[in-house]
Amino acid sequence: MRIIGIDPGVGRVGYGVVEADGDRWRAIAYGVIATEPGRRPADRLLAIAEALEALLRQTDPQAAAVERLFFKANVTTAMAVSEARGVILLVLGRRGLNVAEYTPTEVKQAIAGNGRADKGQMQAMVRLLLGLPAPPAPDDAADALALALAHGQRFRFDRRIAAGGRGEEAARRV
Amino acid sequence: MRIIGIDPGVGRVGYGVVEADGDRWRAIAYGVIATEPGRRPADRLLAIAEALEALLRQTDPQAAAVERLFFKANVTTAMAVSEARGVILLVLGRRGLNVAEYTPTEVKQAIAGNGRADKGQMQAMVRLLLGLPAPPAPDDAADALALALAHGQRFRFDRRIAAGGRGEEAARRV
Repeated sequence: MRIIGIDPGVGRVGYGVVEADGDRWRAIAYGVIATEPGRRPADRLLAIAEALEALLRQTDPQAAAVERLFFKANVTTAMAVSEARGVILLVLGRRGLNVAEYTPTEVKQAIAGNGRADKGQMQAMVRLLLGLPAPPAPDDAADALALALAHGQRFRFDRRIAAGGRGEEAARRV
Repeated sequence: MRIIGIDPGVGRVGYGVVEADGDRWRAIAYGVIATEPGRRPADRLLAIAEALEALLRQTDPQAAAVERLFFKANVTTAMAVSEARGVILLVLGRRGLNVAEYTPTEVKQAIAGNGRADKGQMQAMVRLLLGLPAPPAPDDAADALALALAHGQRFRFDRRIAAGGRGEEAARRV
């Protein structure tokens, strides 16, 4: 079971691909898709689509989670990020992936057990869960890994519920 | 010279394709791409992309104009429309089309000579410019036709400037 998590943006799209390894998770790939600030919006969206398509071909995930945006302040930024998010949803959908959406609070709750966990706590938990030698960087990639892990945990939880009386063993076979 | 104009939305994407016919313009196609409210956001974006791709294959425009959004009030709506807008920019870009962006005020100025023209004035001007038997409907399609016409007028104006001393005749050969 491979899951891709994506933290949308225009200048930087964070991504993280994790795989179930027994009852643990390991990181397959993580990083950012960066686009040049000087380029036209349509060209930046095209660059994001192409890089994401290549990443999906390389890592072949079976599920996807994308951060749900909540903006209060800057509507212009919210609209630009949403354009990128639309492109990301389209590319994932075209590959036949169901896309789960989580707010940052939901991800923090799932990973750190606290919806208001700070950046340091989150990075420490992601590092621990994936057995990484150091906290994952940059931030956008760490956020994307956390999204993928949050989705993986929900997926396992749903399986455990579905498995019912068959207990823990079923939940491990993700 | 064929131009497609697009008025982005989630539930309804207006489109209009116009073609230069001597010193006049005629409508090749106009209407809306509608998506079902009950479907998931990713599925609605996929439906928009597929319908737009089919429309581009059928009408084969050489230029595109998309409405630039300015939202003050509802950020949630602004973000949803921006997701659709991102998908539209991607589909146009993938077809190799340069995308011009205009605000509603710029379109009104170009078509009616008044940035604050009302809906009725705009529909009357679009009808007149395209020689249509009745005002174009629905509104989203009329807005999209106005966008395409505004871009066509700028295109002609730029040519006239470029033609310099060669005068009016050059401007007509669009």
